[in-house]
Amino acid sequence: MNFSMVKYTIGRLLQVEAILLVAPLVVSLIYREEWKYPFSFLSISLLLLTIGYLLSSKKPIKKNMFAKEGFIIVSLSWILLSFFGSLPFVINGDIPRLIDAFFETSSGFTTTGSSILTDVEALAQSSLFWRSFTHLIGGMGILVFALAILPQIESESVHIMKAEVPGPVFGKLVSKLSSSARILYKIYLILTAVVVILLLFGGMNFFDALLHAFGAAGTGGFGIKNGSIASYDSAYIDYVLSFSMLIFGVNFNLFYLVLIGQIKEVLKSEELRWYIGIVLAAVTLICLNLFSHYDSFWRMLRDAFFSVSSIITTTGFSTADFGSWPVFSQTVLIILMFFGASAGSTAGGLKISRVAILWKTAVSEFKRNANPNRIVTIKYEGKPLDKEVKHSVTNYFVIYMIIFFALLLLISFDAPDFTSAFSAVAATFNNIGPGLGTVGPLASFAHASDFSKLVLSFAMIAGRLEIFPILILFNRNTWRKHI
Amino acid sequence: MNFSMVKYTIGRLLQVEAILLVAPLVVSLIYREEWKYPFSFLSISLLLLTIGYLLSSKKPIKKNMFAKEGFIIVSLSWILLSFFGSLPFVINGDIPRLIDAFFETSSGFTTTGSSILTDVEALAQSSLFWRSFTHLIGGMGILVFALAILPQIESESVHIMKAEVPGPVFGKLVSKLSSSARILYKIYLILTAVVVILLLFGGMNFFDALLHAFGAAGTGGFGIKNGSIASYDSAYIDYVLSFSMLIFGVNFNLFYLVLIGQIKEVLKSEELRWYIGIVLAAVTLICLNLFSHYDSFWRMLRDAFFSVSSIITTTGFSTADFGSWPVFSQTVLIILMFFGASAGSTAGGLKISRVAILWKTAVSEFKRNANPNRIVTIKYEGKPLDKEVKHSVTNYFVIYMIIFFALLLLISFDAPDFTSAFSAVAATFNNIGPGLGTVGPLASFAHASDFSKLVLSFAMIAGRLEIFPILILFNRNTWRKHI
Repeated sequence: MNFSMVKYTIGRLLQVEAILLVAPLVVSLIYREEWKYPFSFLSISLLLLTIGYLLSSKKPIKKNMFAKEGFIIVSLSWILLSFFGSLPFVINGDIPRLIDAFFETSSGFTTTGSSILTDVEALAQSSLFWRSFTHLIGGMGILVFALAILPQIESESVHIMKAEVPGPVFGKLVSKLSSSARILYKIYLILTAVVVILLLFGGMNFFDALLHAFGAAGTGGFGIKNGSIASYDSAYIDYVLSFSMLIFGVNFNLFYLVLIGQIKEVLKSEELRWYIGIVLAAVTLICLNLFSHYDSFWRMLRDAFFSVSSIITTTGFSTADFGSWPVFSQTVLIILMFFGASAGSTAGGLKISRVAILWKTAVSEFKRNANPNRIVTIKYEGKPLDKEVKHSVTNYFVIYMIIFFALLLLISFDAPDFTSAFSAVAATFNNIGPGLGTVGPLASFAHASDFSKLVLSFAMIAGRLEIFPILILFNRNTWRKHI
Repeated sequence: MNFSMVKYTIGRLLQVEAILLVAPLVVSLIYREEWKYPFSFLSISLLLLTIGYLLSSKKPIKKNMFAKEGFIIVSLSWILLSFFGSLPFVINGDIPRLIDAFFETSSGFTTTGSSILTDVEALAQSSLFWRSFTHLIGGMGILVFALAILPQIESESVHIMKAEVPGPVFGKLVSKLSSSARILYKIYLILTAVVVILLLFGGMNFFDALLHAFGAAGTGGFGIKNGSIASYDSAYIDYVLSFSMLIFGVNFNLFYLVLIGQIKEVLKSEELRWYIGIVLAAVTLICLNLFSHYDSFWRMLRDAFFSVSSIITTTGFSTADFGSWPVFSQTVLIILMFFGASAGSTAGGLKISRVAILWKTAVSEFKRNANPNRIVTIKYEGKPLDKEVKHSVTNYFVIYMIIFFALLLLISFDAPDFTSAFSAVAATFNNIGPGLGTVGPLASFAHASDFSKLVLSFAMIAGRLEIFPILILFNRNTWRKHI
């Protein structure tokens, strides 16, 4: 284990967070907030600069890194970033309890959007900004961001990117990693800017538009009104956000292909077609089920489309209280929670490509059982599916379900009922936000116990990093000096 | 597809059911019940003899069978046996509606034990007998039974036995299949007789002892009192049944090893050790959780042990209303519902050997990800695990979860809440019996819609036959004359 490289990289990363904290500091100055707000961001920024400097002052001699180092760097960074990122809330008093602030900030960075706040409108502008800004940072991955601006950690950092970018297969866009990261971030920020502009057209003020764009881009879902998006009561805003969320649930490699003019390749994408198909199917099923519950067809379509888009992209914005919908619609949404959107997007969950591969595996296994002598090959994205990829997907699914049930067991310790426990884990582990029951769209995680909040914070980080990087922290082999 | 062989075998099987119907006929005569009872069993028995004769009058010329024929025979038989087995209830009026009777009989044969009855004590003795007798027949598998008594269908019938006997690997005890089947059935019946005797010692009358022994042996769980086992209020009976259920959840091959004196082999069984370990762990966790809910330690231990034993073996007898236990205990039980007991036992669920292999797969996948260059081998039952077996287990798990969520979606159409829907599917698909919420230990499936009853009957049969045989009925290739 190359500990000096781990230390160095984490040090640089904390410095990056220090710089990012300047943004809410500026917001607090613009809005002329009480001195405790600028102070809270400035002090933590300075603290991070110091710690970051101490950790990274000594450049490591051996720069070699393996998968293990990638895992450790990514998991430790995400925990530390969430921890330090939560301190301003504690200092300025907007979220006075550390454990609540940690939950909220983990929820932000992991783009979950679950909140312990019962009155979000009581927060200062700068706090609201920082809270939503973590979505933007966490969506694409802060280490990918660091990679884009700090090319000196390029060497062997493929392991970092592999560990942080979700999905079963990891494809570089261009040969140089830092260039790939920069291209991804450019696409990401331009798309975010487009969402801001579209929201401005809908009559939102700039501050609200910016923060909701952050939430949509990172597929995070923190609202800044107590009624989330329902507070705006605008069909235009609902549809802009519905489509924006769906766009950010698309594999970013496809946007790159659009940029370089390979539209044909994009249309051929099997994952994209599955994604669109699932969204259409889910909206149709829910509409059929809701038919007698709505007076207006268009209102029903708008709510159903928004909820499906919000849940499958694991964003978690809400317009309708789907907790009051019939059980069938709720079950459709719960299943979508596990699907998540495309690999290589900012979404959580299993990812559509895994769902597609799992489905194909199931079909081929059935055929193989019915005709043991027949050779069944699985095709995906136009070519025979690599056996290694197939096995890694099924194995990932097994691990995913084991962790899911382990988390469910822990949460059931002080959950009020099974539905709340189940959907709280589903909503956090898949980085969605609201669940059902006592953690439904109109409720919050405020009443969860400290123990539950810690477990769910862990669930969010494990979900965002696709489990492995976090598991390695619990492996005693990791902490031996020599491997 | 060898349709004439399918027809012939099913014909013979219906004749077997005709003979089995003589048992409740005799019971109705012994208890001098109204004429409609003997009439209902006699008439259906004669009907089955006729249909069976017509189907099997022509001996097929080609006797070759493949996996496909095995699947079709097993799935069609189970559906037809449940259908014809339900007719006496309709005729004698004890369960007047066909769909209810079909649900109840499928639940019996598949050893699920879910009931649509709200007042089971209103049934005639002969009806109660037939209802519980289906557990005994279904537990070991009626085709295995047919194999034991009808050696003329021996040729190539390994596919039948493979399709009907649960578990990831299928091992013959002795070289000849019909001898294997006979040995299994002998062990099964002797153990059942032991349970009857032990229950008689507890003060139960012969009729009750017999029927509860059927329920325990088949890990079925139909009670014959409205309060299930709680009605007897006897610690002795609770413990006898707890241990009996656990015994019938052990792989029957192990009993054979005991018979031929290879005790050492039995103690080495990894599946057995996992099984015992999981039971002890679950009882401990639930006791820790229930501590403040019980005045008496011994009463708590008795209820916890009984519930764990009843759920993990997928029997479903109940003494305590675990629906009123804290959510953590409920969650432990829900997880056990999916585990099920050992492969090659009468239990449902995933089976412990699959759970163990899934766990080992997860651990090895994690190691492989942390150290991509390391070669990780999985050991199971003392030897390296065959890759094919490993993949078939993970693939089975994928299919299992897909079917589970598909069933959940169908059931949620008219379920009152998510917990009820989830646990109704878990309880039937895993052949357990009672769920939580509106289908809890003290409730019944009486209020489910006809659509739900049909879907759940399908779930029970699919779960009992480990999915594949049932899926093949939905494959259009199956129904083409030539393959």
